[in-house]
Amino acid sequence: MIKEPKQLAKNLGLVFRQPEFLRMALTHRSMGANNNERLEFLGDSILGFIIAQKLYDNFPKASEGVLSRLRASLVNQDSLACIAREHKIGDYLILGSGELKSGGFRRDSILSDAVEGIIGALFKDQGIAACENWILAIFAKKLNTLNADSEQKDPKTRLQELMQARGVFLPKYELISMSGLAHSQTFKIECIVLTDKKCLGEGSSRKRAEQASAEKMLNLLLQRESK
Amino acid sequence: MIKEPKQLAKNLGLVFRQPEFLRMALTHRSMGANNNERLEFLGDSILGFIIAQKLYDNFPKASEGVLSRLRASLVNQDSLACIAREHKIGDYLILGSGELKSGGFRRDSILSDAVEGIIGALFKDQGIAACENWILAIFAKKLNTLNADSEQKDPKTRLQELMQARGVFLPKYELISMSGLAHSQTFKIECIVLTDKKCLGEGSSRKRAEQASAEKMLNLLLQRESK
Repeated sequence: MIKEPKQLAKNLGLVFRQPEFLRMALTHRSMGANNNERLEFLGDSILGFIIAQKLYDNFPKASEGVLSRLRASLVNQDSLACIAREHKIGDYLILGSGELKSGGFRRDSILSDAVEGIIGALFKDQGIAACENWILAIFAKKLNTLNADSEQKDPKTRLQELMQARGVFLPKYELISMSGLAHSQTFKIECIVLTDKKCLGEGSSRKRAEQASAEKMLNLLLQRESK
Repeated sequence: MIKEPKQLAKNLGLVFRQPEFLRMALTHRSMGANNNERLEFLGDSILGFIIAQKLYDNFPKASEGVLSRLRASLVNQDSLACIAREHKIGDYLILGSGELKSGGFRRDSILSDAVEGIIGALFKDQGIAACENWILAIFAKKLNTLNADSEQKDPKTRLQELMQARGVFLPKYELISMSGLAHSQTFKIECIVLTDKKCLGEGSSRKRAEQASAEKMLNLLLQRESK
């Protein structure tokens, strides 16, 4: 038995003027054409923006690469599904019978989409300021414990730690080219992990080029996971 | 000789209260640590959000997949570089000597980053409403000519047309599995292009599963290009 969306709104600390938006945000595509996918598209973009601006302000010295990684660590299917579980959003999902039987209300992807759908619904109902307040509230704990400390380490160290944590071979660095005169040389280095993933880095020293290639590799590996 | 950012602001129809943000938006990383990458990160997320909400409103019947593709066709390195050229933003870029010599002010990636940087700068200076106005102004032509017509075609047809336009072999569809009883069957179909790109689609009929796999493939191919 699906619970009433109104009760969910209350639990989330929200009041919808147009509750049909919330209902749509909770409606999975297994219910047919009027589902939450459009609101999810909207909510995803709003979430990306609100978290980006918060990180920009909170970490004034972090580079673009660090900001991207921090956002990817905050906003991903896992973290959104976790927020959904915390607020028991699964109990309010409107699913087709197939998904219902197979336990769709517990699936990470469905839960995560519903959270983005709710953000889209809130935007249509009340605008961006309301979204900002709610997003910052549901991410408050995560934002507070987030620190750029682990981000202070250089990219090579972090990449090495990531590979070790996964129990796979350490990255290799190969010099691809060296050009220019003594005081303005350019090094190109390729970082290789798992034999087939390669990222090219460039820098005015071998070390800098290695760090640049490691940073690209980290972005590649972590961004893929956040999709 | 680099022109004054103030003149650019005027050309763009903008007045910055804190012109240092605009200067930073125009400063390439070849100039050192105080560059436009952080503003670009912010601007990119704002652009994604503003275009998402506009498409959501303009195309009330478009599916999430269509909205994503429309956005990818509007917002990509090509289109942003094109906007930059239209407004002669290249003349105002602040580049290190290496980039200057190698003609960095003409490079698509640098021009595109500068546009996103300006959006980030405008946000820091004046907030989201000003960004929305400016983004909708610079995308007005593109938004007006955009139509969902080509998007009315089904995913298989569009994928086929895309492959034909590129002169490569047509997609193949392979049945991976079939499960369930007569009236609630699930088909899984894999769409394969260029021998190595594969996307799995699911549906209650073979045809629906093929369309779903083709849609995923379109998203995969077009999103990659928009990065």
